[in-house]
Amino acid sequence: MARIAVGVEYEGTDFVGWQSQRNGRSVAQVLSAAVSTVAAETVEVYGAGRTDAGVHATGQVAHFDAAAPRSPRQWLLGINSNLPADVAVTWVQPVPDDFDARRSALARRYRYAIVCSVAKPVLTRRFAWWLREPLDCAAMAEASIAWIGEHDFSAFRAANCQSSTPMRRIEALAITRFEQRVEIEVTANAFLYHMVRNLVGVLAEIGRGRAAPQWAEELLAGRDRSKAAPTAPSCGLTLVAVRYAAELGLPAAAERAPPF
Amino acid sequence: MARIAVGVEYEGTDFVGWQSQRNGRSVAQVLSAAVSTVAAETVEVYGAGRTDAGVHATGQVAHFDAAAPRSPRQWLLGINSNLPADVAVTWVQPVPDDFDARRSALARRYRYAIVCSVAKPVLTRRFAWWLREPLDCAAMAEASIAWIGEHDFSAFRAANCQSSTPMRRIEALAITRFEQRVEIEVTANAFLYHMVRNLVGVLAEIGRGRAAPQWAEELLAGRDRSKAAPTAPSCGLTLVAVRYAAELGLPAAAERAPPF
Repeated sequence: MARIAVGVEYEGTDFVGWQSQRNGRSVAQVLSAAVSTVAAETVEVYGAGRTDAGVHATGQVAHFDAAAPRSPRQWLLGINSNLPADVAVTWVQPVPDDFDARRSALARRYRYAIVCSVAKPVLTRRFAWWLREPLDCAAMAEASIAWIGEHDFSAFRAANCQSSTPMRRIEALAITRFEQRVEIEVTANAFLYHMVRNLVGVLAEIGRGRAAPQWAEELLAGRDRSKAAPTAPSCGLTLVAVRYAAELGLPAAAERAPPF
Repeated sequence: MARIAVGVEYEGTDFVGWQSQRNGRSVAQVLSAAVSTVAAETVEVYGAGRTDAGVHATGQVAHFDAAAPRSPRQWLLGINSNLPADVAVTWVQPVPDDFDARRSALARRYRYAIVCSVAKPVLTRRFAWWLREPLDCAAMAEASIAWIGEHDFSAFRAANCQSSTPMRRIEALAITRFEQRVEIEVTANAFLYHMVRNLVGVLAEIGRGRAAPQWAEELLAGRDRSKAAPTAPSCGLTLVAVRYAAELGLPAAAERAPPF
């Protein structure tokens, strides 16, 4: 029996999310079925981040245990030929038995894309939130500074979040703009349920001038979810990287995330 | 009666192409129907480039005539609310009566995207050609130099091309690479039927080391379509810009093409 780590890319549009639900197809379920076929035994796949329905990934990481002797290349080609078009394994690497895709992860990076235009976006419609107004990125960047570091993020936590603590450490939050496209990239040790989409919802209010940058800090201090902005839609969100200890030698996200 | 020019963005995946065919939905047909609804009369829309089935556009330009008094903003919002999700009008501007989207065009720019990876691409699968091997972009760039300028492009012309002349002037051909993604951007006064996809097919053979860079020049000189490489698939191709006389003051492509 060997433990195997894999990189996973998927378009979340037609999935109920990473985790299996009573109804609908989940990424974990579709991926476990493909791995089981190649392994010739029933295999369960465990992911680093339980992305929501509609959320995409270019840098999801997962692990599974299998007895079948297969090379990384055999796993990759075999699994991918058993997967539908909206999910693929991007790399395969053997890992120590105590590696756990979720618990061994040191940090996660999410990217949220917004397209600001009067005309509806077409080519990017499945991967970005469409706003009809422009965004003031300088105000958004000023606002986000208050969130950097370790904080109680209760104000940005969905009601049904199952985490034992609301404390999270945001390492970096970058806002970039190219023409009509605004991207918000957040790296943290881990995220609460809906946390990125709630942070983006608040930044969008500030960017549209409906609230002052100081509101971001006030919300954080208030720790009251009912005071914050509506959750930004799932289609704009992509899990782009999961970081592990360098000794594991897993492929760096930059090598596996397509430029999008 | 006034003549109106519009910018058009579409995902070609589910279209039979720009031009109406006996079967299937065409962009021109879907767009003409939407414009007719807003104009409250039957309107025919004429495009600058007759893109093929599966080919996308971020910078297509079209024109139509209508008597209804509507502001550009009213046209834009009205037309877009009558279009399906895979096509949108990006800008609207009145033009002189002698403007013709196709005949007034000075140049067209197409972008062809290739993803080189062992794993199948997921998020970009509808917008790029997947190659399992890496490409030698330096060899491709060397090869493409022979095509710059005015030439007889018979070797890169589909059998059913209806143009009266095989002469075309390529103004620029740029090859860029970012990680696994290779983009080939070609600007010409006009293109023969399947010309970009045939040029890309040849560059891909050279990039994969199956032919020397000199082959590009030999093929051009030979003017024999049967000697060239297979046509690259339509999904990788996007019409990104159409150029007109600056006096017309139409929106520049850079402002309307989403970064993709």
